[in-house]
Amino acid sequence: MLVVGGGVIGLATAWRTAQRGLSVTLLDPDPGHGANRVAAGMLAPVTELQYGEEELLRLGIASNQRYAAFAAELEAASGLPTGYRPCGTLAVALDADDRAELREVHAFQQRLGLAAEWLTGRECRRLEPMLAPSVRGGLLVSGDHQVDGRRLGAALLEACVRAGVRIHRSRAARIELAPAGDRVTGALAEDGSALGAGQTVLAAGSWSGAIPGLPAAAQLPVRPVKGQILRLRMATTAGAPLPGGPFLSRNLRAVVRGVHLYLVPREDGELVVGATMEEQGYDTAVTAGGVYELLRDAHELLPGITELPLLETGAGLRPGTPDNAPLLGPTALPGLVAATGHHRNGILLTPVTADAVADYLTTGQLPPEAAPFTPDRFSSHALTEASR
Amino acid sequence: MLVVGGGVIGLATAWRTAQRGLSVTLLDPDPGHGANRVAAGMLAPVTELQYGEEELLRLGIASNQRYAAFAAELEAASGLPTGYRPCGTLAVALDADDRAELREVHAFQQRLGLAAEWLTGRECRRLEPMLAPSVRGGLLVSGDHQVDGRRLGAALLEACVRAGVRIHRSRAARIELAPAGDRVTGALAEDGSALGAGQTVLAAGSWSGAIPGLPAAAQLPVRPVKGQILRLRMATTAGAPLPGGPFLSRNLRAVVRGVHLYLVPREDGELVVGATMEEQGYDTAVTAGGVYELLRDAHELLPGITELPLLETGAGLRPGTPDNAPLLGPTALPGLVAATGHHRNGILLTPVTADAVADYLTTGQLPPEAAPFTPDRFSSHALTEASR
Repeated sequence: MLVVGGGVIGLATAWRTAQRGLSVTLLDPDPGHGANRVAAGMLAPVTELQYGEEELLRLGIASNQRYAAFAAELEAASGLPTGYRPCGTLAVALDADDRAELREVHAFQQRLGLAAEWLTGRECRRLEPMLAPSVRGGLLVSGDHQVDGRRLGAALLEACVRAGVRIHRSRAARIELAPAGDRVTGALAEDGSALGAGQTVLAAGSWSGAIPGLPAAAQLPVRPVKGQILRLRMATTAGAPLPGGPFLSRNLRAVVRGVHLYLVPREDGELVVGATMEEQGYDTAVTAGGVYELLRDAHELLPGITELPLLETGAGLRPGTPDNAPLLGPTALPGLVAATGHHRNGILLTPVTADAVADYLTTGQLPPEAAPFTPDRFSSHALTEASR
Repeated sequence: MLVVGGGVIGLATAWRTAQRGLSVTLLDPDPGHGANRVAAGMLAPVTELQYGEEELLRLGIASNQRYAAFAAELEAASGLPTGYRPCGTLAVALDADDRAELREVHAFQQRLGLAAEWLTGRECRRLEPMLAPSVRGGLLVSGDHQVDGRRLGAALLEACVRAGVRIHRSRAARIELAPAGDRVTGALAEDGSALGAGQTVLAAGSWSGAIPGLPAAAQLPVRPVKGQILRLRMATTAGAPLPGGPFLSRNLRAVVRGVHLYLVPREDGELVVGATMEEQGYDTAVTAGGVYELLRDAHELLPGITELPLLETGAGLRPGTPDNAPLLGPTALPGLVAATGHHRNGILLTPVTADAVADYLTTGQLPPEAAPFTPDRFSSHALTEASR
């Protein structure tokens, strides 16, 4: 079995599949360094609930419920930390419009039986004293946590190696087809190696729709969605702990002027601020405007942020799909299995994706929670059916 | 002769002195990497004119007039570029208050016979089409140019080596005194080397007042003044030239909400945006607030800046003095010569400082333009005289 792509999705899929006794090769020039390098790592299916995405919500909740055990097992298997932190998430509203919108989200959460508690602005500030006085109210979602995407990638790579996954460090030059063109037989690496496989998992993130070799009808509808993030340190510029307690104790999320902003405080004192959403092709430049908007909006939410050291700016590419949901399982071409298109949810959906794709590879069946996400929902036949 | 400190001031002084036949050692752990690493390199004595600083203006003009020849000689001597660019400077006003202030500066410039031309907002935008519509007017100073501080440092280091300066790569642990304590005899390096010298030039930038060994009365009144800067690229995020001509063709300066902002466009497409002024001791952390303010103010001046890639954020320490002017020439202690305290003008004043200190070391006399800047203006006697 061949996995093309060594971001967290590819690595976790390789790990889970190798655990079941299959022989696995993973192809990536720099495994562990996918979009996870610039992910905030918020595990927030309930906080990030969107109307019309109830199936994605169920998938996210299923993955979130597995996360504590997944992280513990991964840490034991790799001997490395993952930064999993069951801290909860606070979503706040800055003005009356925000508050009305957040109230609606809360009502929808309640209809779905999801655990979320409405707080006044004062109650929000009691939980997070650095919040701006302008915060009007918020939603506390005690079950939405975080993990460190970078540590997750490093731990998954080590777990793969320990589980016997062969890591082939090169880029995929081409997906290989059988002479009749009717099935995928592996991939050709840029270093010239031909990696044959009965099953090839395409887990190449935002490049999953761009690797040569597949006929047009079998191409996956994945496009890059650029995100820029910042990393700050919650300490004085001299490195000492901040006076007056922690700067932020749980994930914080807000919509500022219509733009989603989140701040994820790591246990080690790092604060990740994200993220822009930009349709810019494969460009990964950090821009003056991206950094400016993140700092401006974060400052509006947490004025004290100006004092914090800015450690890093970065940009990465999310694999977007037409419905913002992942592509999981069999594709139109036998031998080619999808594990991609996770858009903003790649870190959250890592455990459930790896389990589902390992299930499919070993049993030929996807588990029920993953079944709605097969790529054939975008085939011309499916689209025709839907439009009737 | 020993030079303590290998920023551009120390290097240029060592180079000029070695050219006159003296045997020179320069002590620095990483020469060429002083505050010049984060300097914008604006050579703008006329644009940056301040009331009450006419002597500093004369020194700055003297240095500016030498810059073209200095850069040419340095490039020939080192075989390296300096990034000297005779582009002129445009100072602009964003609101009526700014304009009134800039008008006063212009009147003062005219009284002093300095070349500066008043432009309407429309004329400013004709010169620099990316300027915001809110620009109300400006001053074109055609004689204020720029140099690249990093290239300058690298070229000076190479010129020093070629001129026979011995580079001792270590930090100064202590200034050494004669047993009687009545004169300086060199310095002890952190690597344990004792570097004896008849004349020791203290050119340690913002650390010039903090190196152990000197009696309190001989300490130089130098403190660190932190500055944060940004480096952007004037190109599309894909690296192509911008459509519609250059983003900025000359140095741009403004006062935004009372804060001085400058944007220096290099010939190679880099755009330096500076700089904050912060009294934070020796802290050099880049902060969220520093970056935010620079981006906010730059965006107000040049809205199109949001599209530009942000390459780097940085912070450095200017050597500040009580009157913002440098300390040049003999100190209270025989054997110790000052070449420090250049505050915001280190790059500009490099040629005149090097010439003046080399003059002093070889003839015992400072040239007239440097004479007002000896450190004894801050001795208790001088202060008593001044307060009578």
